[in-house]
Amino acid sequence: MGIESAEPGTVRPGGRTARVRAAVLEAAGDALAEQGFARLDLADIARRADVGKTTVYRRWGTVAGLVADLLSDMAEQSLPRTETGSLLEDLKANASLVRRTLSDRRQGALFKAVIAAATTDARTAEALHRFYEIRIAEWAPCVQQAVERGELPADTDGHEVIRAVSAPLYYRLLTSAAPLDEAAAERAAEAAAAAARAGCYRSTAGSGA
Amino acid sequence: MGIESAEPGTVRPGGRTARVRAAVLEAAGDALAEQGFARLDLADIARRADVGKTTVYRRWGTVAGLVADLLSDMAEQSLPRTETGSLLEDLKANASLVRRTLSDRRQGALFKAVIAAATTDARTAEALHRFYEIRIAEWAPCVQQAVERGELPADTDGHEVIRAVSAPLYYRLLTSAAPLDEAAAERAAEAAAAAARAGCYRSTAGSGA
Repeated sequence: MGIESAEPGTVRPGGRTARVRAAVLEAAGDALAEQGFARLDLADIARRADVGKTTVYRRWGTVAGLVADLLSDMAEQSLPRTETGSLLEDLKANASLVRRTLSDRRQGALFKAVIAAATTDARTAEALHRFYEIRIAEWAPCVQQAVERGELPADTDGHEVIRAVSAPLYYRLLTSAAPLDEAAAERAAEAAAAAARAGCYRSTAGSGA
Repeated sequence: MGIESAEPGTVRPGGRTARVRAAVLEAAGDALAEQGFARLDLADIARRADVGKTTVYRRWGTVAGLVADLLSDMAEQSLPRTETGSLLEDLKANASLVRRTLSDRRQGALFKAVIAAATTDARTAEALHRFYEIRIAEWAPCVQQAVERGELPADTDGHEVIRAVSAPLYYRLLTSAAPLDEAAAERAAEAAAAAARAGCYRSTAGSGA
């Protein structure tokens, strides 16, 4: 059942546009996960979404433009952070979310495809960087809260701590055949918390520690 | 000046074969860095290396086979680890080596290209995983030495500590536009050392810490 088959007059102003976007982005995500970036084709995505080809070309223009919009939507749709009252538990919640996303069949393939595309396509790289900035900024306040609770040095860089949680999971995904299990997620959270407590992510750091 | 122009009779047995391999792998690395995996072409690589096309097809068969051999050669050619007598200094040497490799124009592009290719090509993925296993195993003994010096818990997993040094550098390379500077390398080494000291990489760990 495609978007364009919605009965005329039953949709709020703006509703149809939003639903066309949702259908096209979902189809783009499916195609990316199945085929990778290099084989993406706007006409094929329009067919999958049951949306007119002209609409897709007019609205997104290029494959890179569509993928950039997909990443922007993924950032908007992502889950809000968890607040547990403890740095370690907050970081474990973050690590577990990243792990579940990357080990999900469709989502994992989609992230791999976009990261691969970003190595050659500047617009996709920019959209991917923006996606991570938004996600990191969503979680960074849990570090600030830990600072306020006295768990961490005052000048701890929250963005660096959150990046440190993700890094080993992405590294494992891209450079090894090892499974992304919960033990890996826990270890990533524990290591980031321990290094943060040791002062490694202080914004004035760079030696010592 | 190409390999095939070496005067007959001037080369040791085995020497010509080794030099053909070196020339073809260098040309393959150049092509990967410039164009990415998807545009690699054995005939073009043979031309760049000034080696007969038939030789390249006979010896490597496919682009994936050639890239796998390139990765195997890169693992063999990589620098041996540094031994400084201190865990933190050893890890800093490792981080600095990884950083220099990834920020080198040709090498950085080459690694990005191979990581991207590994997301879709199983043979390249296997060769890439093997490359990292070899490099991690080269450096892991510095962790064992730190254990023997009493710097770290006895059951610290050296491979995990070395992976923890690389992870933030690869994550930064692939997900952000931030430069891979020496401060990032130092921070990666310090964080891995701090987490290792806190027991996060004990092979029996998974909770606590």
